[in-house]
Formats: sequence, structure tokens, C-alpha cells
Amino acid sequence: MQNYTPQIQEILTRGVTEVIDNNSLVKKLQTNKQIRVKFGIDPTGADLHLGHTVNLWKLRQFQNAGHIAVLIIGDYTASIGDPSGKDKTRPHLTSEQIEENYQQYKQQALHILSEDNLEVRHQTEWFSDFSLQDMIKLTSSASVSQVLSHETFRNRLETHSPFSAHELLYPFLQGYDSVAVQADIELGAVEQKFNLLMGRIVQRVYGQEPQDVMMSPYLLGTDGKEKMSKSLGNYIGVNDEPSDMFGKVMSITDSEILLYFEMVTSVSIEQLQEYKKQDIQGHKARDLKMELAYIITKTFHGEQKAQQAKDEFVSVFQKGDTQKGAKDIVLPEQQYALGDLLVQSGLVASKNEARRHTEQGSVYINDSKKQDVFENISLSKDAPLVARVGKRNIVSILWS
Amino acid sequence: MQNYTPQIQEILTRGVTEVIDNNSLVKKLQTNKQIRVKFGIDPTGADLHLGHTVNLWKLRQFQNAGHIAVLIIGDYTASIGDPSGKDKTRPHLTSEQIEENYQQYKQQALHILSEDNLEVRHQTEWFSDFSLQDMIKLTSSASVSQVLSHETFRNRLETHSPFSAHELLYPFLQGYDSVAVQADIELGAVEQKFNLLMGRIVQRVYGQEPQDVMMSPYLLGTDGKEKMSKSLGNYIGVNDEPSDMFGKVMSITDSEILLYFEMVTSVSIEQLQEYKKQDIQGHKARDLKMELAYIITKTFHGEQKAQQAKDEFVSVFQKGDTQKGAKDIVLPEQQYALGDLLVQSGLVASKNEARRHTEQGSVYINDSKKQDVFENISLSKDAPLVARVGKRNIVSILWS
Repeated sequence: MQNYTPQIQEILTRGVTEVIDNNSLVKKLQTNKQIRVKFGIDPTGADLHLGHTVNLWKLRQFQNAGHIAVLIIGDYTASIGDPSGKDKTRPHLTSEQIEENYQQYKQQALHILSEDNLEVRHQTEWFSDFSLQDMIKLTSSASVSQVLSHETFRNRLETHSPFSAHELLYPFLQGYDSVAVQADIELGAVEQKFNLLMGRIVQRVYGQEPQDVMMSPYLLGTDGKEKMSKSLGNYIGVNDEPSDMFGKVMSITDSEILLYFEMVTSVSIEQLQEYKKQDIQGHKARDLKMELAYIITKTFHGEQKAQQAKDEFVSVFQKGDTQKGAKDIVLPEQQYALGDLLVQSGLVASKNEARRHTEQGSVYINDSKKQDVFENISLSKDAPLVARVGKRNIVSILWS
Repeated sequence: MQNYTPQIQEILTRGVTEVIDNNSLVKKLQTNKQIRVKFGIDPTGADLHLGHTVNLWKLRQFQNAGHIAVLIIGDYTASIGDPSGKDKTRPHLTSEQIEENYQQYKQQALHILSEDNLEVRHQTEWFSDFSLQDMIKLTSSASVSQVLSHETFRNRLETHSPFSAHELLYPFLQGYDSVAVQADIELGAVEQKFNLLMGRIVQRVYGQEPQDVMMSPYLLGTDGKEKMSKSLGNYIGVNDEPSDMFGKVMSITDSEILLYFEMVTSVSIEQLQEYKKQDIQGHKARDLKMELAYIITKTFHGEQKAQQAKDEFVSVFQKGDTQKGAKDIVLPEQQYALGDLLVQSGLVASKNEARRHTEQGSVYINDSKKQDVFENISLSKDAPLVARVGKRNIVSILWS
């Protein structure tokens, strides 16, 4: 890797799990020719979280090196939905809904992407007039075994979950997108490997040089365990309010700090290497996470609001100036059953009382209603808590 | 079955292996409503043989009962061929070739079909403007497991023979043909069951009552063993010359006589039942086969030429008046290696001579050039032979 420019080196290695074919990509990057970097966006939802931005940051690195980010809006398939009606994740959307979703997406994505070197394309451009003959040619590009080797298809065949034959067409359509935009490379997550490779297969049949494929790792959510996702509730939304965003970043586990810097900020490679040399523990970890939270908040809300969010966080959680009316309680860093935590923090007099309040729905941890008095709550230096029973009894629980 | 009219009974039982759904078909036939009987024809070849006419005779029975025979010309798929180039049986045809093939087909088929109650439709009518969205809806009508349960697909997957995904589309297209022509019933051979049933599946998705499906047995070829087919050489061509046609029918095995009467003539049900009561052996069998040969030849060449062919046959093979210059040889009824037959009939002096003539390509049995001196030749009362070596040495070999 010694001979690459820092820019090429960053593209090839920062937040990258696998490249197919790496040699080919290196050649493309070294010719100084402008290359076309395809990235498909899903127009069925509009709210991005940090996990979605991993590939936007990668696109931005390509843009910085003078290449073109080609965003593909899957409006054709989104407008069809699932005609068999079995796949609830493929609702039928009107073109207005799709356009509205895209406008929201764009507003969020442009915090990261540059408007220069940005090309936005709609599937309808090439699929509106796609004929049956085109489709037969397209589907002749891959064998049935290749398509069925797709993990989700294989699993569903093996478990005898019925799925309609039209679903086999979608990977071909995504592959054809690469033909339509003449992609030199496509970005995606590791679990999209199959669909990304379809682009290579299909392009060959249409006489194009196959695109390279760059796969990113996924970002862990605030729980430190699972991939960041909306349904798991462990996400940091791009549209979150500054103080929420700041607080959520502060709640990630220490082991993720450097990965977040690498994958969802533009902090320089040199700076990253500096961080990596340090022993990130205790106050050092907290300070570095504050830096991360500030940078991420700044990306989406600007410097001033990021600073405000930081100041607020510091005053609430580090100076003990918690929510109005709250008093600070310091407990040992460990796991608590919810009932025990409420008793030990003095919010309730007994476990029975804790149970009653929980059943009545008046117990909140960090503003999230709790309904199971036995739920395990972790208290750690990474995760200070604000506990509340009813409207008035509030404590801020710190670690000892 | 007692309550059916003879016409309905003939439709339901004559040359029929399976009907799905029989009850539904009976209802349709009994309402006196005109029903639409779909039959797909392959426009890649033009020469019909008797095996192809089985379903034409069935169509004619429907026509006789006042129903409409709807011929579908698969011109759309024939014009595409196999874009992956792997399937040699799917060549790409020009629309001129397809039309020419169809005109030849029609000329042959009209010996059986009536021009009244005949509707000819081309796939291009509905597929030329078929969009990708139409295709996605169409393919959503069946599950992947359903399509892969198709025997040929399953075998190819299991034996890891690669086949392209576009081939999965063809059964859907054939199914959609039924939607386009609003078929009430489709005819086909037993081995087409899967494709025939696709029509039912697809019609349901498009809100049509599913067609019934009537499957015919296949006709054995002149070898009495295999299904009649061009590639096996055991066929009786619709365009064969009258004497050839007559002679070939005379060469079928006795056990097939009644099936031929049933499947490829319009001899009445009553007449068929008469035949079935008889003990068909020896001269009885030969006489009945002559009747069959006459009827079949008459179908395609008219009464006069059929009579000529019959007279010729009788004079050659029954009166011993063989080809000019030929002398009659009588040998025991059994199997002979070609070389032995030539020696025993006195055409050559030795097996060596037999081998030399065979290698030189001058040995003919019934005007068909033989190239393997060890080929087994059966001599039986059903199959008298004319053997020839070179231009002059001719014998007519009869059985003893």
C-alpha cells in the first residue's frame, strides 16, 4: 500500500470490509480518470440514522478525490410494491410519496455529500419502457442456481416458506441499474453482497466492464451489541435534536468510539492513528466520546448547536445539574433489577411500591416507560441514568 | 357417464389421459355455451407428423360440438430465441420465418380442423407491449417452489446443469396466453402438464375462472416402442407421399391399430366399439390396418390417391408383384443382422461382400440406406422388406 496517495489509501481501507475486485479498483483509482460510484437508496423510508451514513461518508471520500457519486432512487420497484401482497416491507408507494421521501433523504444526506460531483438517477428512467424482451435478455444473464444461492432465497426454499417468483427478478433489476448508470463501482453493506455482485454479472452481458464492489462493515447501535437499526431502537437519528444526538453518542460503548470516528466522521486518517495509539479508558474514553459526540452533532446541526448540546450534557451529567427537581444519587456500577434500582435510589419505599408504579405505567428510565419491574438495568460510567416515578420524583443516578 | 350426449362423451373420453378439472369441464360442456379451446403451436418447425395431429383431432371434436378452437402461435418467444445462446432448441426466428412456418402448419392442420370456429392468435398481440410492471405482476402469480417443481427444472437443478433464469419466465408466458385469449380449456400432451397448469394459476391472479386442462396420450411410432418423433425416424409425416404414408401405416404393430383409429381418425365411436369386439390377429389385423392406412391417407391426400396407394400396396406386397426386376425370397420370420440377411437372400455371396457394399453405401432396405452391416433387421408379417444392393440387385423378402 506504500505507493498509494493518502486519498486512495483512505478510499481503499477506511471503513471497508471487502472489495471485489481490489486490483481492478486500484487501477481505476490510479488512472486519474473520473469514476462513477453507484449507491442505491431505498425510497420507502425517509429517516436516516448514523448506520445509513457509513456509505455516504465513503461516497464523500470518492467525491473528494474528484469522482462522481451516483445515487440511484429505486422508484420503479417502490411504485410497484409487492404485487403478491405477501411482503409488507414492499408497500406500494405513489410517485409523490417517493419524491417526498427522496427530498427528505437528500436534505439529510447533503450534510455529508457534496452537491458537486453528485448525480441523482431514478430507476424509472430506464425501467418505464423496459420490454418483456429486455427482461428476457436481462434474466438470461445469470443461472437459476446463482440466483437461488442468494442466502435469503436459499433459506426460504429450505424452510419451505413460499415466496413468489417475481422476487427473483429484483436482483436482476438492481444489477441492471449498474448497466444503466455505467457504474464503475458500487457501494453497499456486507449483507448486500449478492445484489452488489449481480451488477457485475449483468454488466458483462451488456458488454460493460464489470463494476467493482466495495462493502462496508455495519455500525453497532447504542446497545453495543446489535447493528444499528430503527426496529431495535438502538439508533442515533440524523434528524435527532442536538441534545438527544449528543446524549445518544455518549451512550455508545467505549469499544465503539474509534470505529465511529472511522466510519461516520471525516476526522483525518492521521488523527485516527493518533487516537489509536492512546489507551482509551475511564476519563480518557469519556473525553474522546465527547469529542465524537460534538463532531457528529456538528455534522448535522452545525457548530453552535453542537456546542450548546455539549455544554448541556456537561452541566447535566458531569456537574450533577440534572433535570429540574432531580437530585443526584450515586450507586455502585453494576446491573440492577428495575425494582431494586428504584428502591436503592430512594424513589420508592419498597419493591411492592416499585411493582405497583411499574404496573401503572408511571416508571420511566431516561424518559422511556418501563413495564417490567424485573428488567435488568445496567449502571455504568458510559450510561448515567435519569429515573422518574410519576411526574415529580426524579433522580439522576450516577456511578461510584 | 350415461347422461352425456354422445358428442360430449366423445370429447371427454376419446384419446384422453387426464382432465383437470373434469367436473368443471363437464359443466361447461353441458351449458351449451360456446367454450374457447386453447392449443399452442410451436412455430419453430413446420412439418407435422401423425403424433402432432392427436390434439388437432380433439380440437375438431370440440369444433364439431360448436366450440371455438383457439390456436396460439408462439411467435413472441420464437422471435427472441434463447438470449443466453445455450438452448439450441430455441433458435431466434424472424417474423417472416415464423409466418412461413405457420402457413405450412395451417395447410397441414386444415386437413383435420374446420375453418369455421377457428381463431388464430399470435403471442405478439399481447406481449409486444408487455411492460416490466406487467411481468412483475405475472411472475408474482406463482411461488418459486411451484415453478421449480417443474420436472425439467428440478432435474437440471439437481444435476447442477446450469440453466438461465429467463427460462423460468417461459411457463408464465404460456400461462398468460390463457389470460389473453380467455381460454376455457387448454389441450396438450401429458408431458406438458406443468405448463398447462400454469394457465390455471395465472388466470386466477388476473381474475379469470381457471381453464380446464385436457391431456392426451402420445402416439407410438412405427417401431411400436417409442413415442412418434422426427428425431427417432419412427414417424409418419403428414406431408408424406400417399404410398409412403400408406406403407408406413402398414408397418405399425398390430397392438397399435385401435389406438391409431381412436386418436388419429374420425372413425365413429360406434365403429371403434365394433373393432374392439373383434379378435385382431393375422389376416384380420392386416385387413384392419389396410382400412386404417386408407383412412389416414385419405385424410391428407383425398380418396383417389388413398385408393391408388392401397392398390399399389396390395399389388406389391400381397400379390408378390414387387419392384421391377425384384424376385421374391421367402425367409423365416425372425431378426437378422443386415449382413446375414443379404447373404441369405442371395443378394451377395459372402459377409465380406455384404460389408464392402454397406461401407460403399450401396445397400438399401425399403429405400433407406444402411451403413451398419450388423444392424438388426426384423422380418415379420407386418413388415415385408425390399432389399437392394447397388442399382440392380433387388429382392422382395417375404416371411414364411
